[in-house]
Amino acid sequence: MSDWPLLFDPHALDGPGETKQARLAAAIVQAVRAGRLRPGARLLGSRRLAEAMGVHRNTALAALRALEAEGWITTRPGAGTFVAADLPDVAAQPFAGPRAGTPAAPGFDFPAAPEAPPAEPPPGALVLAGGVPDLRSVPVVALTRAWRRALTVAGGTLLSYGPPHGHPALRAALAQMVTRLRGLTAGPDDVLVTRGSQQALDLLARVLVRPGDVVAVEALGYPPAWSAFERAGARLVPLPVDGEGADVDALEAALATGPVRAIYLTPHHQFPTMVPLSPARRLRLLALAARHRVAVIEDDYDHEFHHVGRPLHPLASADDAGVVVYVGTLSKVLAPGLRAGFVVAPRPLIDRLAAERRVVDRQGDRALEAALAELLEDGEVQRHARRMRRVYGARRAALVEALRAHAGDALGFDVPPGGLALWARFERDDFPGWVRRCRDRGVWFQTAPELCRPDATPPPCARLGFASLDEDALREAARRMGAALL
Amino acid sequence: MSDWPLLFDPHALDGPGETKQARLAAAIVQAVRAGRLRPGARLLGSRRLAEAMGVHRNTALAALRALEAEGWITTRPGAGTFVAADLPDVAAQPFAGPRAGTPAAPGFDFPAAPEAPPAEPPPGALVLAGGVPDLRSVPVVALTRAWRRALTVAGGTLLSYGPPHGHPALRAALAQMVTRLRGLTAGPDDVLVTRGSQQALDLLARVLVRPGDVVAVEALGYPPAWSAFERAGARLVPLPVDGEGADVDALEAALATGPVRAIYLTPHHQFPTMVPLSPARRLRLLALAARHRVAVIEDDYDHEFHHVGRPLHPLASADDAGVVVYVGTLSKVLAPGLRAGFVVAPRPLIDRLAAERRVVDRQGDRALEAALAELLEDGEVQRHARRMRRVYGARRAALVEALRAHAGDALGFDVPPGGLALWARFERDDFPGWVRRCRDRGVWFQTAPELCRPDATPPPCARLGFASLDEDALREAARRMGAALL
Repeated sequence: MSDWPLLFDPHALDGPGETKQARLAAAIVQAVRAGRLRPGARLLGSRRLAEAMGVHRNTALAALRALEAEGWITTRPGAGTFVAADLPDVAAQPFAGPRAGTPAAPGFDFPAAPEAPPAEPPPGALVLAGGVPDLRSVPVVALTRAWRRALTVAGGTLLSYGPPHGHPALRAALAQMVTRLRGLTAGPDDVLVTRGSQQALDLLARVLVRPGDVVAVEALGYPPAWSAFERAGARLVPLPVDGEGADVDALEAALATGPVRAIYLTPHHQFPTMVPLSPARRLRLLALAARHRVAVIEDDYDHEFHHVGRPLHPLASADDAGVVVYVGTLSKVLAPGLRAGFVVAPRPLIDRLAAERRVVDRQGDRALEAALAELLEDGEVQRHARRMRRVYGARRAALVEALRAHAGDALGFDVPPGGLALWARFERDDFPGWVRRCRDRGVWFQTAPELCRPDATPPPCARLGFASLDEDALREAARRMGAALL
Repeated sequence: MSDWPLLFDPHALDGPGETKQARLAAAIVQAVRAGRLRPGARLLGSRRLAEAMGVHRNTALAALRALEAEGWITTRPGAGTFVAADLPDVAAQPFAGPRAGTPAAPGFDFPAAPEAPPAEPPPGALVLAGGVPDLRSVPVVALTRAWRRALTVAGGTLLSYGPPHGHPALRAALAQMVTRLRGLTAGPDDVLVTRGSQQALDLLARVLVRPGDVVAVEALGYPPAWSAFERAGARLVPLPVDGEGADVDALEAALATGPVRAIYLTPHHQFPTMVPLSPARRLRLLALAARHRVAVIEDDYDHEFHHVGRPLHPLASADDAGVVVYVGTLSKVLAPGLRAGFVVAPRPLIDRLAAERRVVDRQGDRALEAALAELLEDGEVQRHARRMRRVYGARRAALVEALRAHAGDALGFDVPPGGLALWARFERDDFPGWVRRCRDRGVWFQTAPELCRPDATPPPCARLGFASLDEDALREAARRMGAALL
């Protein structure tokens, strides 16, 4: 068998990583797979194999032993070593080395994603994003200290499996926060910790929605929430949005034609029009939902950032029937990268959502949850929110003034009572053309068509976020937006 | 209106949290909701309101202004202040304070969870869990330093939104690891970071499975994976497991009756029997899957802990057709609480899974991912794995010896070539009785009925994990298990 070495990739034994023994074994396996060594074929003994492959005899011995233990070869005392006879017989193929890489395409089919991938602004663009808070002043030192303390003090517990509901200290701290500051009067058992509000919405969709169920949504709204409901098979019905928020008459009309499983809305700072749901509509919605047993999913995504007076109490604070599922997040007040959301709802639903969590990703990051609880208990989160409210208030004023100066008659907007973005209406012709010219000038923002249900008509409006750019950048963006007017 | 104060909860203005102004406004709202103040009713002016409620006039003024901004009241110059006329008219209710708490039950229905909640061992029980590694020696110091470094150096980026595929450095480090140590030859683009293998399985179920699709699973297997596939509507078909692992003939028989979407299996240390899938079956499975375009989901959950020889190369290393989806995790080698899993697969599938991630929970914890990448690059993970292999090897030996001493003829088992548990067969009668007596003595372990498909017959076997208890505890557990024999 003097041609033995030719059966193998000459470089099979080179390179870092595994031992020569392992690579020799792998090379023999490869030769079997490719049909160059047939089932039942006789192999060289360890001494001759070692000579042929240029390795120690012990290396060859170890490789052969491993192959025998794995079932690739068999030893017959006195007769020799053979490739196992029960392996499938593969017609010999031309020399093929070890797998060159992950195959470029899968060997099976799968459905494409329903959504188009999001547009990516180029680096350096001025992005007027409403959802991305200023991250430069996040209390990183406090956070890392708290995380380290959590791990070193209680490491074993926090690194292990735990309840999918979330760390008890964080549930308690969130319950305290919503009770003291949002009128929700909740206990720790009424709270589920999630990885951001997106996970909360996805869990709710999985638990509440059966294929074909009707879910009412604001006609101008938040597409990632729609995706979650549609994944669960929901049929989305649009409710118009006007100067008082979502049109509750339209919900009543929908209920007249058939059951509605849930309504998803943003009643504090309506996304994206920023209009608060009026008190009259709040009360009617709660009464309607209680009577028809409709789940009201209230997404209070940027609660802390209310500028005129106090933040409005959530729908949930007035909900005695248990129809409201309150979804909150720390993403806007701390950082989106921390993925810290929560649900406040009657306990049986919280427990059901937690059971679903086991199947989805088992549990949250317990050490991070313990650290966030500490930040809440110490008031660090609230102090940061107060600081950011002042910063954002100044930025909002700067953007408002700059837009009036540079695009005064072309863009109409109310200054909203809260939130981190303006909703501006383009008062001229050719809104898409102007948006394109803004992008050409490096200014990016979301527009109504991206945020509108397909069965509704988008107005020529833009969502102009002011949270993530400083005042100079906002003024520059407004200047370019004005220059983009023809 | 001298009875004004009687319209309000006498303690409405007490307590911490919000300002007196906010609480006054809330109390007025509450009175309106409860019908004690009717739409159109005239309110006291600010001076008389302040006197009646025992607050500063400025406080009352501010409260009324806020209520007017929110639409609860209207001011008619010269006429006075009135409850808004367009509010729904609610029949007056007996005195009702602010919401006493989150309602005990939801006002809508939802389906119950399909799975029973897991049994909870009492505190202090000796739990022979195979999946819970010893957490006492996790490199916490290295991890917290790396996390802090990640946040303080690149804080802004890591705290922000990022690609759902995972942090590029971790994708690269994982690609390196599987290439060098597992024969997978993958690049960063072939890797998706997930929150544990559970999330990987759930994402795969969402992307691959349509309701009614057949998914083949080992008849003795891993129930959380089954749950993920069943949530997506899969019909699970059991494949018997024998001394060579999953029965590939049974897969071929299933394919003869109709299409099979995917097969899910644990071919390295079969969960729970610990038998490696034999080479002959590996090759037949890959050929069958390639021919019939079946996705092969390979869950290599405890790769590093192979005791006899080198770890077996995964199915994926021999997969040229792109049918294998390789799921790995750092949970067993680091800690389950860190939720660090990954998928290696052809890039189009990785991208599709990432798109699904946007809807599920948007992205991972980027700072933690950066920290894990550093631990992998520094070899910290591999050093820890080597240390733990030695520890687990000693524990396995201790458990084996103690079981032979205390329960020698009652429990039959092979010493498996890898993994963190034994699979032991009860050789006497009344297996359930013995299990119960073990639990009464404070010894808990999983048994075949909990790990068996409903359409298959469980053998009288127990999964005896040795990773999370030290040698003394393992010996004590074996002693009690022997005592539980009658």
